[in-house]
Formats: sequence, C-alpha cells, structure tokens
Amino acid sequence: MPVDLSALAQPADTRIVLVVMDGLGGYADASRGTELEEATTPNLDALAAEGAVGLVEPVGPGVTPGSGPGHLALFGYDPLEYELGRGALSAAGLEVELKPGDVAARGNLATLDAAGNVVDRRAGRIADDEAAEVVGALAAGVHLHGATVSFHPEAQHRVLVVLRGQGLDPRVSDTDPQSTGVPPCRAEALVPGSERTADLVNELSDQVRSLLAGRPKANALLLRGFDSHRELPSMQQRFGLTPAAVAVYPMYRGIARLVGMEVLPKAADLDGQLALLGEHWDRFDFFFLHHKPTDSAGEDGDFARKVAAIEALDAAVPALRALGPDVIVVSGDHATPTQMAAHSWHPVPALVWAERVGRDGVDRFGERWCAAGGLGLRPTRDLLPIALACAGRLRKYGA
Amino acid sequence: MPVDLSALAQPADTRIVLVVMDGLGGYADASRGTELEEATTPNLDALAAEGAVGLVEPVGPGVTPGSGPGHLALFGYDPLEYELGRGALSAAGLEVELKPGDVAARGNLATLDAAGNVVDRRAGRIADDEAAEVVGALAAGVHLHGATVSFHPEAQHRVLVVLRGQGLDPRVSDTDPQSTGVPPCRAEALVPGSERTADLVNELSDQVRSLLAGRPKANALLLRGFDSHRELPSMQQRFGLTPAAVAVYPMYRGIARLVGMEVLPKAADLDGQLALLGEHWDRFDFFFLHHKPTDSAGEDGDFARKVAAIEALDAAVPALRALGPDVIVVSGDHATPTQMAAHSWHPVPALVWAERVGRDGVDRFGERWCAAGGLGLRPTRDLLPIALACAGRLRKYGA
Repeated sequence: MPVDLSALAQPADTRIVLVVMDGLGGYADASRGTELEEATTPNLDALAAEGAVGLVEPVGPGVTPGSGPGHLALFGYDPLEYELGRGALSAAGLEVELKPGDVAARGNLATLDAAGNVVDRRAGRIADDEAAEVVGALAAGVHLHGATVSFHPEAQHRVLVVLRGQGLDPRVSDTDPQSTGVPPCRAEALVPGSERTADLVNELSDQVRSLLAGRPKANALLLRGFDSHRELPSMQQRFGLTPAAVAVYPMYRGIARLVGMEVLPKAADLDGQLALLGEHWDRFDFFFLHHKPTDSAGEDGDFARKVAAIEALDAAVPALRALGPDVIVVSGDHATPTQMAAHSWHPVPALVWAERVGRDGVDRFGERWCAAGGLGLRPTRDLLPIALACAGRLRKYGA
Repeated sequence: MPVDLSALAQPADTRIVLVVMDGLGGYADASRGTELEEATTPNLDALAAEGAVGLVEPVGPGVTPGSGPGHLALFGYDPLEYELGRGALSAAGLEVELKPGDVAARGNLATLDAAGNVVDRRAGRIADDEAAEVVGALAAGVHLHGATVSFHPEAQHRVLVVLRGQGLDPRVSDTDPQSTGVPPCRAEALVPGSERTADLVNELSDQVRSLLAGRPKANALLLRGFDSHRELPSMQQRFGLTPAAVAVYPMYRGIARLVGMEVLPKAADLDGQLALLGEHWDRFDFFFLHHKPTDSAGEDGDFARKVAAIEALDAAVPALRALGPDVIVVSGDHATPTQMAAHSWHPVPALVWAERVGRDGVDRFGERWCAAGGLGLRPTRDLLPIALACAGRLRKYGA
C-alpha cells in the first residue's frame, strides 16, 4: 500500500525541473563503459557532486519499459497501476480527442511482397507528403459496418487509427508481426466479448490491402497497441503541482497532456526548449523537459551519437541552473543501450539536485557511480516524492 | 504481499538489542557532512566493520515520518498498515487506559493575543506546576453535553485530552493551526458521522477560552491528532519475541507498550538505561533501547549537541557489547537534520551487527558509507526480520 501523497501535499513557492534524457541508460561491457560513463559531462557531474545519485527501475527488475510506462513512472505514477496503450499515447500526441468507447491503435504503413509477407515494417520510412496521400486514400475508401474509422497521419510511416462505434473493446491482438518475412497477423479477441472488434480490425486490414494493392512502397497497414480512452488523475490532483511540458516529439507531448500538464509550444531544439522554460518560468512549479536524441541514437546503435546527445544536454545545464530551480531531477524513461539498438531493462541512472537532498559523496554521473549513491536502487516512481520533499511540498506523515 | 513471519518464528536462546537513536539521520551539504558522519564514533564504526550497514526509509520515499510510524517500522510493523495517532501514543505514554470508543487528542496549552490569534503554541513552555494548576481549572470547569472529558497533564504545555461517550468518532480535523499569527482552527468532520464529535471539540475549545480568559500565558488549548483506541498485534504474536523497552520519554514508553513490550522502570540517563538492560537481561530476548538526545538536539538545530549525543551513545556501546547480545541493530526512527530543526524524509543510517550478518567491507557508520553497504536501501521495517534471522529465530520458508 503506497502512501497517499495527495493527503500530504502542501504548497510552496518552489520549482522542480525534471530532465528526461530518453533512453539514457546503457550497459558497460568488456570493451568500454556505458554511453553516460564515457561521455564528458562536467555539468551533470557537478549536479551529482552537489546532489545525490542512484539507479532507478521504471517498471520492475528485468522488465523493458515502453515509453508510456517509463514516463508515467517518472511522473510519479505506478506504471502497473496506470496503463497506457500506444494508441492512447499517439492520440494524445496528435491532439486527437478520444471519446469514451473509442478504440485507438498505432498503425505503420508497410511494404508486403507478392506473397503477402512483410518486407519493410516502415514502408521505407516513406516521406510525410507521400504518406499523407496514402492516408487520404484510406480515409476515402475504407468503410466498416457498424463503426466509423478515422486515420491521422503522424511522421513518416506512422498513422493513428481510431475506431468509433457501439460495443468496441480494445482487448484484441496486434496485426503487426514485429518482424519481416512473415505475413501480418490476424487480430484475435483476447477476452470474450472483443470478437467483434477483432473482426472489424481484420475487415479494416483487408480493405486497406485492396485499396493499396499495386503500390510499390505502402501497400499495407500494420496495427498495434489497441487502446481505449482512460482518464488518469492529474499531477495537480495527485501532488498539488501546476506542471508544464517542454517536449518536441508528439508522443511525449501526448503523455504529458494525459497527466494534466500544460504542453508548451514546440521548440526546434534544446536551446529553444530552454528558452521556453525561461519564458514560462513564473506560471508553473513543475517542468518536464524531454530530450529525445539520446534514445534516437541508442535505437540506431550509434554509440558516438548517443554520447554526443548526452554531452549536448550536459552543455544546457548551466542555462537551466541560471533559471534558479529549487530541485533538478535528471534521469531517463528507460535504457536504450547502443549494443542492443532497442529499449532494455537495465536500471537507469538518476540524480536529484537540491539544497536539502543530502550530498552522498559521489561526484560523477554514470551507472557505476550511481550504484553507490545515496538514492540507492529504487523504482523510478520514487523520484517524484523525493523531489517534492526537497521542494518543501510534503507534510509530515503521522504523529 | 509480505511474508507472514509469525508462521516462520522459531525459538532460540538469543538476544537482540535494538538501539534507536531518535532522529539519527541528517544530510550533508556544501559546508560539512551529516551529524553522524562528523561525529567521532570508534565503537559504532567497529560494529559497522564487523557487521553490515545500509540506509532505511521508515514510511516511504520523500515522506517525513512522525515518531509513531517511525518506531512501528523499527519494530517490524508496516506503518501504513498500522496507524497510531498522537492521542493514542500520549495516552499509552501516560498509562491512561483508552477504552474502545474513547477519542484522545494531544493538546497544547497556548497563548492567544487580544485579537484571538496564536502568539505562542506552547504557552512559553509553561512550567509543570503552573500547567498542572491550569489543567486543574479545566478539569473542574469544562462540562460537555453527552460526553465526559478528562485532562491529563504531560510535561510543560502538553496535555492529553480524552473524550468518552456514545458515538464519538476521531475523524475530525485539528484545532491546532501549527503556526502563529492566526486563530485556532475550528474542528471539522472529516467523514459523514463525525459532525457531533467536531461540535463537542469546538464546544470544549470555547469553554476553555472562557475559563482561561485573562490569563497572560495559557489562555487556550490547541488540539491535534484525534485518535481512538486500536489494538495492535503484539511482537510476541508477530515474531515470537519477549520484548522489553528501556526508554525515558513517555511517548516511546507508550508505543513500546502498544506493541506488547514490557516497559522497564524509568532510568535517569543512558548509564541507567544500560544498567536496566543488564538487570533484566535474562528475562527478555529483545530489548528496545531508546536514545532521545539526538532528536532533541536536531529539533533545536544544534549541530554540535547532536554530534555529542551521538558520541555519548557511541561511548555506551562497549557496555552494551559486554552484556553479550547476539544481534545489535542501530538505527533511527527518522532523520532530524539540524539544518531543518525538524523531522525530515532523508533515509536513516542503519547497522546490523551479528556473527552471521555478513560483513560488507564498510567500516564506518554514516550516511555516505551506508549508501554502499550490504543492507542496501530498504524500508525500515525490513530490519527486524533481518535481526530475527541473524538471531536464528526464523525457519526456512517453503520446501
């Protein structure tokens, strides 16, 4: 039974900045240290020296988190208690409003060969304008019985699909096989009662195949992460915070919106994100600053680029400190080791910098030093209560 | 779901001593280490070198514990599962028996100004005999409709108030505003059904104001921590222990009694407490030794005095070891950093000394060294099972 922090929340004139380096974590091997250990990070090291460090697990030991649970944990939500499908995340990121009863899924435009096997799960990372034309054809041509369907293009091959109608149930299996050389999967009901939704999804997939037949690049749509609208309690309700998000990528803007953050305008880069922080500094007491390039480089397996992405964030720390935050938290939503070119289960380094956090004698930010830090090894969701405490925002528990 | 230790408990001819340095934890800042880190503690360091160390959180990350939950956690009780109000704690400490249905609260004699605002929440820390006279006036003069009220003076401004009658409900809000320059609060019902109790509390407060009107020092009574009688399972039931407490201050004697400890006579000081331990060594297998001066100094913001209080305890360790305990646990119920002069959320250093605990290579007792210790960072309530195991008092779980 966790502590009900909403009962302990108290106001304070303090500001917390949560810096999320997406996919920050890595693992050391025989040849070298992690990306963070190998990066030159004088400013993050200074935060570590003046603060406390540790390692955090977003979901649980050995569990590789998706971006949704990884971020929910950073925002102080138990990701096992609050689930988010990729559909709901994409919808929030695109500012597509899901109504109760809607079922949303993340779609990939994909290339099948003549035998119907997946050749490219991303249709050659099709250009946005070409994808928009394909999605237009789908919007005009797909018609289901007893449900309406809408298609919302995201970047490149990514499409949000929303089904609306009576009695829909998101508990159906993905059609995306997550690999090539095999045909798309048929959607199947995962619980009694979701058969009709599975049928609609299969009908939708078949119509898309017919409509796009003969196109060399995008001739199929792979669906995954079926999800329905679910209300999350806001960070205001849970922690008494007035939070803002400074994120560039739609999905992170979306999840921030789902927990009640005001999402500030899109910035072009990290400098722009910091400028936004400064511009809106007085209106909020919690800022979520999302840094994507660490994860992108990790997903591409590019060690040097991930190191550079970490060093770029490090270079922004002085400007962040100049704003005068009371608490800075730096961590990641999950690990993305370049050796794996994918998300992983490895614990993620974390630091909390605040006047009262308690210095722990560690003066470098990196996995091996964090293992001996004062924050210990703990669930990611512990970071927010610690930040609230350091910001003077939690009352005493019990007499 | 925690392990049911009562099913694993087995007898052994071993003795455990739990040394609680109240408010032990602190935090290091730019100018120096924590009180424990800066203290000279050769005997505690020897225990650390021969044992294992770690950091413990009494209630949860970021949560500042009151004394009740902090001690329950040290006694192996989940403080979120077992709640104690200050009223129940005070009653137990004063040996005032609460009956089922009674509502107890902790009262402070306080000074209000002519406008009715709180000037001093402790009535100038009024002397005991003066307070006794005031409490006598209240006992003679306050009369409620449908409930009886009794007043029990504690030290200085502290008064235990017990309401007895039909249909009382402790779920009413405090009248103590916890700050000065504002009037006392009106008690409010926190749940449907406790309105009548709130009305009685407000009537009581009004009568006290009338009775004490014109007194320069104590002219009001601020109430907090309303609580009713709740049975806790004893340490005998939960762990098969026969426990004794050697504590000087009433509240700690009270909470020890609530978990089934036999409370040994009051000693004047630490030497006296150790003498009591020796005197009763053969009758018990678990001893709770409570050391208050660390917290008192912390609450007063007196770094040097807190260091001295730690060093005083350190000096008593050889006498403790001479008794021949099998297991020594040293920790605190919460942190009381002198920089804050208040309880805080910071993790508390802990050590377990026993032949079989497993040496971890750490040879100093203090927050930064404990962060790298073999006990790790864990909830405070984990210490008791570890102590039981080291004492040979827990059977194997499962086949």
